Amino acid sequence: MQLDQASTEQLREWESALSAQYEEFKAAGLNLDLTRGKPSSEQLSLSDAILDVLGHDLSNETNTDLRNYGGLDGIAECKRLFAPVLGVSTDEILIGGNSSLTLMYFAAMFANHMGFGDLGKAWSDGGQTVKFLCPVPGYDRHFAVCEHLGIEMIPVSMNDNGPDMDEVEALVKADASIKGIWCVPRFSNPTGIVYSDDVVKRIAELGKVAGDNFRVFWDNAYAVHSLSDSAPELANLMDACRKAGTENSVYLFGSTSKITYAGAGVAFVGMSAANLKAFKHHLGMTQIGPDKINQLRHVRLLQDSNGLAAHMREHAAVLKPRFDIVLKHLNEGIGDSGLLSWTAPEGGYFIAVDTLPGLAKQVVAMAADAGVKLTPAGATFPYGKDPQDRNIRLAPSVPTLEEIDRAMQVFVTCVKLASVRQRLG
Amino acid sequence: MQLDQASTEQLREWESALSAQYEEFKAAGLNLDLTRGKPSSEQLSLSDAILDVLGHDLSNETNTDLRNYGGLDGIAECKRLFAPVLGVSTDEILIGGNSSLTLMYFAAMFANHMGFGDLGKAWSDGGQTVKFLCPVPGYDRHFAVCEHLGIEMIPVSMNDNGPDMDEVEALVKADASIKGIWCVPRFSNPTGIVYSDDVVKRIAELGKVAGDNFRVFWDNAYAVHSLSDSAPELANLMDACRKAGTENSVYLFGSTSKITYAGAGVAFVGMSAANLKAFKHHLGMTQIGPDKINQLRHVRLLQDSNGLAAHMREHAAVLKPRFDIVLKHLNEGIGDSGLLSWTAPEGGYFIAVDTLPGLAKQVVAMAADAGVKLTPAGATFPYGKDPQDRNIRLAPSVPTLEEIDRAMQVFVTCVKLASVRQRLG
Repeated sequence: MQLDQASTEQLREWESALSAQYEEFKAAGLNLDLTRGKPSSEQLSLSDAILDVLGHDLSNETNTDLRNYGGLDGIAECKRLFAPVLGVSTDEILIGGNSSLTLMYFAAMFANHMGFGDLGKAWSDGGQTVKFLCPVPGYDRHFAVCEHLGIEMIPVSMNDNGPDMDEVEALVKADASIKGIWCVPRFSNPTGIVYSDDVVKRIAELGKVAGDNFRVFWDNAYAVHSLSDSAPELANLMDACRKAGTENSVYLFGSTSKITYAGAGVAFVGMSAANLKAFKHHLGMTQIGPDKINQLRHVRLLQDSNGLAAHMREHAAVLKPRFDIVLKHLNEGIGDSGLLSWTAPEGGYFIAVDTLPGLAKQVVAMAADAGVKLTPAGATFPYGKDPQDRNIRLAPSVPTLEEIDRAMQVFVTCVKLASVRQRLG
Repeated sequence: MQLDQASTEQLREWESALSAQYEEFKAAGLNLDLTRGKPSSEQLSLSDAILDVLGHDLSNETNTDLRNYGGLDGIAECKRLFAPVLGVSTDEILIGGNSSLTLMYFAAMFANHMGFGDLGKAWSDGGQTVKFLCPVPGYDRHFAVCEHLGIEMIPVSMNDNGPDMDEVEALVKADASIKGIWCVPRFSNPTGIVYSDDVVKRIAELGKVAGDNFRVFWDNAYAVHSLSDSAPELANLMDACRKAGTENSVYLFGSTSKITYAGAGVAFVGMSAANLKAFKHHLGMTQIGPDKINQLRHVRLLQDSNGLAAHMREHAAVLKPRFDIVLKHLNEGIGDSGLLSWTAPEGGYFIAVDTLPGLAKQVVAMAADAGVKLTPAGATFPYGKDPQDRNIRLAPSVPTLEEIDRAMQVFVTCVKLASVRQRLG
């Protein structure tokens, strides 16, 4: 189906056939959902041993009573387990509660309002406007943190190898009030791409050209979440920073939300020793310490990097067939017609598609009318505004294979029908 | 020992005898600690069934998968368990993670920077100074929250029935920039007193006389932590607010940090429906939801109000002998000499003493030199400054009975010796 070579008559025929198909879907009373970037119950069950892995044995290497207060930065064995996930040393990591979003929020809030201890003043010191770069499409909860803290967001383009670094570098050089950038470097949310080694190197070097106290918010949410062993690796950001002398310019985040239990995992942040000192000072004003017992549960369950890798292969076995169905429908139903462009992620939780300009909202609405819920168009952009109205995020982890199959039939029909109607004018 | 009736010769004799005694303690190489307001390992063990109380049974009344994301305000059965602890309805409570301090910090931060949704603007809107009333002596972590957020603290006196309400009312009437007050209403930290019914009523009525968006921060940390069944009850603040029409003027906090595991409990906040709506909006920017599995563990362990009460009686059985030893030494060693004043708390974690003016720091330093660690003098006041240098907080929960006995011998000797030396000039 090549719209630009089709006659009006051909377009009308397609419109008629697609409409009939669409009305059939509508009549079927479907109730399908491709919105939720969370693990399925089947995936959660992979970690059920965590519920009783401790027994009553709380022995730990520092020989402290984990039931009591204390230990703001988490337990040593948990640091050792997760430091390699972020690619930092065990002196450069803090293990927190169940939410990396909370660690990100605190890091941005402390930086904005309180400053960096010995390293520097608050971003908002003197009442100046604070800005962040937001590669788009991106993760709506990152954008919500900025909006909540009154940080102005500047969208920058995403390429297949990461953010457009020419654009990023030009922006930070030109405007010292740009204080941060959001990055999901491996299996990016939502495009699924992995930042190239060159992009990682250039990100590490931003600390040399950006304004005072610039920080990269490196949300490595899918660090170990590949669909196969051959998925591209991510270069080590902290190592690149050490080479560039910019260790203080990056905050690295991760969690087990999509490793163990989404709601009852542990989160962690990697920082230079100097950043960590300032961060811990601030964090200590908000809490006495994390749930250390749940940290020990994670260590007992996952054991070490090998245990973690084996565990993630089990997740991949559940997820990969779901991604495959989505891609099969896109390849077979859309192909090289030009109606959609998309990436074929090798990990993560999402497949992002771009419709023809101006059609994303309409496709999402049409799918909803036919009983297929999709993430609202625009959600992947700051302030919910996709300037070209093109991007749609598909999240196939929760539905069954049959549900995804059905939902993708509807989706492809909606894309084609909306495109044909747009062409007809 | 009545210093003001003693001759100089008598004072010199006392000084000599007490010095000898003090030197003996110093020589003994003690290593004792009365600083920590946390449960002992013996107390923590009362809750060890929580480790495996779930088995693999995560069934719950809303029939959701507790392992996954979601449920920002906590699980229904946990609300029902803890709403009575705060004296609010199940529609007026949010169950969070392991730290009530975090809930307090967020509440103060959101109020200060972001405002109250439909209810009103941010305290700091327009750059005005924000002030809090701090009954003294009080809890250092409350003061640290204010200091961290740049909120100016105004100390107000504590009486045996709560804060001096004449002073409180006069201050809030005179200065609309006073936006809050910290209260630990039952077994107050550190004096151990319980707010009287009249004080609770007057606190509830502050919302009618204070400036816009005034909030009482009601940290009911020791709500169910009495040493006996005959301890004084606390009047219900939310009920008093309903009578006064000031439901929006109070935030109530609590946690199981001193019920189950100090580091792995659950925390909760009680608020009017309107406050809760605004709070949840803000909180949702910082996290997806609390650890619901740990909430279920608490419900299975404690069951209901009766189970909770029975559990707290076991804590009391461990704590009461510790409080008794401290009071025995104060009564027998100091008595009515006037060298110290103190309260005899019927619950909570602390006994607060007042030395003669100007001696608290010295007594703490002398005790430290003799191997007895005490909470730093001044810690119970905003900015760490006790204007009369009198207050010392004793925390007897962690040491053994023998250790407390020994530590209190040293303490009493230090108080007497410091007092005699001061009198001698």
